[in-house]
Parts: sequence; structure tokens; C-alpha cells
Amino acid sequence: MALIVQKYGGTSVGTVERIQAVADKLIKTRDAGNEVVVVVSAMSGETNRLLGLAREITAHPEGRELDVLLSTGEQVTIALLSMALAEKGAEARSYTGAQVRITTDEAHNKARIKKIDHRCICDDLKQGRIVVVAGFQGVSENGHITTLGRGGSDTTAVALAAALKADECQIYTDVDGVYTTDPRVVPSARRLETITFEEMLEMASLGSKVLQIRAVEFAGKYNVPLRVLSSFEDGPGTLITTEEQQVEQALISGIAFNRDEAQLTITGVPDTPGVAYQILGPVSDANIEVDMIVQNIGSDGTTDFTFTVNRTDYDKALKILQKVAKELGARACSGNNEIVKISLVGVGMRSHAGIAAKMFKVLAAEGINLLMISTSEIKVSVLVEEKYLELGVRVLHSAFGLENETAA
Amino acid sequence: MALIVQKYGGTSVGTVERIQAVADKLIKTRDAGNEVVVVVSAMSGETNRLLGLAREITAHPEGRELDVLLSTGEQVTIALLSMALAEKGAEARSYTGAQVRITTDEAHNKARIKKIDHRCICDDLKQGRIVVVAGFQGVSENGHITTLGRGGSDTTAVALAAALKADECQIYTDVDGVYTTDPRVVPSARRLETITFEEMLEMASLGSKVLQIRAVEFAGKYNVPLRVLSSFEDGPGTLITTEEQQVEQALISGIAFNRDEAQLTITGVPDTPGVAYQILGPVSDANIEVDMIVQNIGSDGTTDFTFTVNRTDYDKALKILQKVAKELGARACSGNNEIVKISLVGVGMRSHAGIAAKMFKVLAAEGINLLMISTSEIKVSVLVEEKYLELGVRVLHSAFGLENETAA
Repeated sequence: MALIVQKYGGTSVGTVERIQAVADKLIKTRDAGNEVVVVVSAMSGETNRLLGLAREITAHPEGRELDVLLSTGEQVTIALLSMALAEKGAEARSYTGAQVRITTDEAHNKARIKKIDHRCICDDLKQGRIVVVAGFQGVSENGHITTLGRGGSDTTAVALAAALKADECQIYTDVDGVYTTDPRVVPSARRLETITFEEMLEMASLGSKVLQIRAVEFAGKYNVPLRVLSSFEDGPGTLITTEEQQVEQALISGIAFNRDEAQLTITGVPDTPGVAYQILGPVSDANIEVDMIVQNIGSDGTTDFTFTVNRTDYDKALKILQKVAKELGARACSGNNEIVKISLVGVGMRSHAGIAAKMFKVLAAEGINLLMISTSEIKVSVLVEEKYLELGVRVLHSAFGLENETAA
Repeated sequence: MALIVQKYGGTSVGTVERIQAVADKLIKTRDAGNEVVVVVSAMSGETNRLLGLAREITAHPEGRELDVLLSTGEQVTIALLSMALAEKGAEARSYTGAQVRITTDEAHNKARIKKIDHRCICDDLKQGRIVVVAGFQGVSENGHITTLGRGGSDTTAVALAAALKADECQIYTDVDGVYTTDPRVVPSARRLETITFEEMLEMASLGSKVLQIRAVEFAGKYNVPLRVLSSFEDGPGTLITTEEQQVEQALISGIAFNRDEAQLTITGVPDTPGVAYQILGPVSDANIEVDMIVQNIGSDGTTDFTFTVNRTDYDKALKILQKVAKELGARACSGNNEIVKISLVGVGMRSHAGIAAKMFKVLAAEGINLLMISTSEIKVSVLVEEKYLELGVRVLHSAFGLENETAA
């Protein structure tokens, strides 16, 4: 008998009919001989309705009270889903975050889980019940209701799976798995059978928004096998797991990309110790997150410094940089906010040389100029002009054989 | 410094604007030098919306899950009211029933409060906060969410006032107090300054639906001064208190009436021991509540037996009675569902003879026939034909001088 934790998001429980369909799926999983715990979000639209009420009252709702308000969304879903299960003859019991109990710190609206007391849940499972848990919420040591912030229900599911030592944590979404790249850009993009936690983190942070990063980190840390599947179609989805358990051993797992990039460059800066901090300190002080950073040392005792920020921060960052350039006596300061980042991701590249070289060659053959390059152990990212995004992703997808079931 | 518990029902917090108006009232009460605890219901319409969702799923929602669902209604209100208070510069903190904590038995949908741990609330009050508590809900010893049933928010307010030894529990409603009778029937009906708990119980159970009976019982038991006032108009309302504290000592406090009556009579029943049980047992077994009961002993060794039930149970009760009549060999069996009950209520009648006689005389003078009479220490009830209801109430209201500030 396996213990399965399933999670259904707001769209999957958005209507009474969909809640009933989720109940059917849960009963099917249980009838296949599993113990089942399910984590659900608020019905789609409900969180916005509640936020709307709060905003009618105040532009800046207090964190504690906002959590009291928003946590009612999932509470409604757990009650309705438990009723739907009972109506279909399955014994079920609902739990709010506080009832489980999922203890968090007291950082309202973005709390972090500290520990989970799963004794009640285990008792219910032993008695054959399906256990229905409200996602996204917890309770502080002092009894205050907290919420985990965006995508918190994924985190709840993974944390519960870890605490219960579940055999698998299944995240039901509106896509049927993780793809080699965005199928809207490359129609031949292929669903991956498996992907490692590390790859998933690179894919997620680079813009494949299937799962929340925190949930993937959590699953990786506690070694919880995580599966992404569709609420609306049957299928095996994609299993996110450790490298050791991966059967498929592709060189490259996928191609991620991010349109929200902007590049800033300062040239001819005197190459003295601490210059990087002098440049990036003011940017960071303005709460602007910096992504890629590259520094070239010139031959004349000066250096060129390039970094990228989110496109929405571009104007603000450029203004700061112009001031810094003046102070440092730099030669010039420029920027470009019509650029994108394309990344090859794959644990297989660790043991294979020449991946980056092949990537550059493929892009060069299409006349795509590389504005910036950055590499890590399992990824190579390049910055290119925005107009080349689709072309670049397509030729790389093909060149690395990602459309085939057996990758190159 | 006085400690005041205020309670606002669903209509009083039915919109964001009304919630803001409640916040103003609370701040005014606090600024007058009081410590303030407020109990609120779900926004009007919200409970029905939630019930509607449940009914889409099942005709018979499980009690436990229904409580999980419905309790979100008040939770939304406490969060919004706390935000409104903060926005107006008043420090506030919200509590669900479970957070207070209000411990109840586990009778879902109609739980009874067992104890209240008010330590958090006291701490908050000491720190100058307005404390906002969700009405209608509690938590069982085992951590299950419970609700108190219809009108439960009144009970929450009174129970909190008792636990906190509050100086007054103020119930804000859509009427501005308790009247000598229904002003729609007698336009000269007068708002009472005070009324005793016992009188209020008789008034409430007889159809004056201002306060829930349980809340009044609770207030009487724990001697919590209870005041009914209007959410929408300023005014002193009506203070419900013990007899000793009453300044106004009227003979009669008010006239209650109930339109939902039906009368059943079985005549010529052999007058043997146990016959009352033989008649009422089957009625009670069918879950029909019996109100007034009168038995006359005839001269021929038989007896006549009359009782009243709620009008909705009339047909069912009559069918049962016809069967019983046959079994007992009774002479006849009849009924009337076009009757009403009129009651004089007043602790003053304890020490005054002749109240009942005067009542009968006044009604007889108008040609109103009495179908049944029942008395208790502080009330006299008569059953009359429905068409005489308004006339009967009006002549009694006038005869006992209830329209005057100084009662007869």
C-alpha cells in the first residue's frame, strides 16, 4: 500500500462540478489500494474576491488580518470536497492548516513551515479516511493564522508528503507535465518522463512556471518524489526526482527562456578592488534583483561590467548606473531592454564537454549574436536580441534532439 | 473604565460601508473610556451562499464539514472589521472561535459552549486593543470546528460577556429595542426601558424574535446585563436585567402573540391512568413539538384532551390523533388550524390578583371567544380565532395602559 499526497490548484476546484471530479479521482486512487491525502487551494476567483473586499477597506491591509481573511478560501474548498467525497460514499475528513497542525514562523503573507504534527492525519488514514488539507496556510506558535504566499499550496503538499514520508507527491495542474520547452514556441516540444530536482529548479527559475520554486527546493531537500500531472486529462505526467532514480539520462533535458530581461553595461571602469560592489551596491540598495553578472578585464587597467535585471526595473537601474558611472569616472554606460535569455538545462552536461560550444555554433549558424554568456554546472544561458527568441529556441530544440523520445 | 461586549448581526455588517460604520461605533465606545470586545456574524447573504454551495454537492451535508464551511463566514467579517478599525487608527485584533478559545461540545451545527479561555483577549484589552471575535462558532476538545446553531452569535456575545465579567453586553439589531407588543399591530406600542430576563424569555418564546432564547437564558443564568439596541439609529434600546435592578415596575411588560398555532382535541376518552401518555406519546415520537396542553375531566368517566402544535405540523398531528382516537375508543377527534395565541407577560402579575380575570373580561367585551387558556407565574396565554388577533392585542394593550410611559 502506497501513501500518495495529491494537490489540486484553484482551477481544478474552481466549480462544484470540478470539485466532484476531483473527488472521483481521489476515490480512484484510493480504490487502487493507496492511502490518500489531498491538499487543495481556494476555488479560482475566491482569493481575488476576498482581496477585493479588503481593498475596499484599506490600501494596506495588515498582514495578520489579511491571513485571517484569505485562509477562509481554502477552508471553503476542504469542506466542499469532503462533502463531495462523503456523498460518493468515501469517508473523508478536512483539516485547516491550524488543525493539522502546520506550524510556521510569524511572517504573515509569506510564512515558512517550521514543523508539521501529522498525528491526526495518520489516525484518519489508518481508519481508511481520505484526508483533505487546506493548502497555503498554517499557524504560528502563538496561534496566529498565517499564509505561505504565492504557490503556497504546492509547498503545503510537499511538506506534508515529506512529514508523512509519502511515496509520491502529485501536483495536479492545468498542464500535463514538464516539457522540453514551451510548446507554444516549439510545437514539437516533448513531455519529459522524468527530470531531476536541480534541472526543475533551473527550468522553474528561468520561466517555466509549472511548479513553485520553494516546493521544488523542499521536495529536493527531503527527497520527496514529485509528479506534475493534468487535472483534466489522464496521463503519467512528469516525475521530478533525484538523479540516481532517473531512468532517462538525456544530455539536455530542456530549454528554458525568459522574456523579462534587461541588460546594463558600464565600460572603462578603473579596475580596482571593490569596484563590483561600488557598482552593484546602489542597485541592490534600491531593491533591484540582479540576475547574470559578467566582468571582463581590459588591457588598459580598466574593466567592463555587464549585468541583467528584470525588465520592469530597467529604467530605475539605468538611472542609478548613470550616477555610479559618473562617480567612478567610467568611460560609458549603456543598456538594452529588448533582450531575452535562453538556457539549456541538463544534468547530463556535467559529464559531456562541448555542450556550450555546440550551442554557440548552432546559434551562430542562424546569425544570432550572443550578448552575454553565463554557465553553471547543469545549464548554459545566453542573452540574445528579443527578435531571435523563437528562432533560437527552435534550432536548439532540434539540434539537441529534444523532440525525439530518445534524446541525442 | 467599563468593559463592554457588543454584538452586530449579519445585516449590520452586510456591506463594506456598514462594516466601516460599525468600526466608527466601536471607536466611539472605546473613546468614551471603555474596553471593547465585539462579536460579529457573517455578512448577510454569506451563510446562504455557502449553504447553496453545499447543497449543490449534497442534500445532507455532514455536520462536521458543514461547520468547517459555515464558520468561514464570520472569519471573513472579523478580518474585514479589524482592517477597518486599523484603517481608522484603532489597534484591533481578530479571533476565530477556535483562537479565543471557545470550547464547545461536539454537537455539530448546534454545539453548546462549555468553557471560554479568555486570556488572549484580556492581554489584548490591557494593551488597548479592540478585540474582534467571530460569533456562532467554537471548537471541540478534539479540535473540531463547531457552530452554535441559529442565533449563535448572540450566545457567543453573552458567553464572552459572562466569562470576561463585562459590565454590559449590547446586542445591536435592526430594531431599537423590545416593545410592549409588535408596533405593526399596535402603532402605539412603546419601547421598554427595561425588562426582566424571565419576561424576555416569555416574550421571545411567544414570538418576539429580537433575541435568541438561548442567549437570554445564558445572560439570566450568569447575570449579564443585556441591552438590545439599533445598529442604524442612536438610542438607549432596552436593558434586560434582573428584577431587583429594574426601576420600572409595571404590572404587565408586554403582549406577545404567535400566529403559528394549531389546536387538536380528542373528546370522550376513557379517563384511565396513562391516557395522556397514550395520546401524546405517538405525537412526540413523530418529532412534533407540543406547546399548550389542557385536560378536562368529564362527569361520565371520560375526559377531553386538547393541545396545540405548530401549524406546519397540524396535518401530521391530526392523522396521528385520528388513529389514537380509534384505538382508545374516543368519542370524537377534531382540530382547528386557524387560531392564534395571545399572551400577557409581566413579573408584576405575581403580586397582583385579577390580571387573568381582567384579560378575559376585556376580550369578552369585544365578543372574542377563548378557545383555550394557559397560565404561568408571569404570563397568561389565551387561544383565540385568528381573525381576532389584531383586535385582541390592541384592546389588551390599551386596557393594561401599555402605551403610557407610566404603566397602569
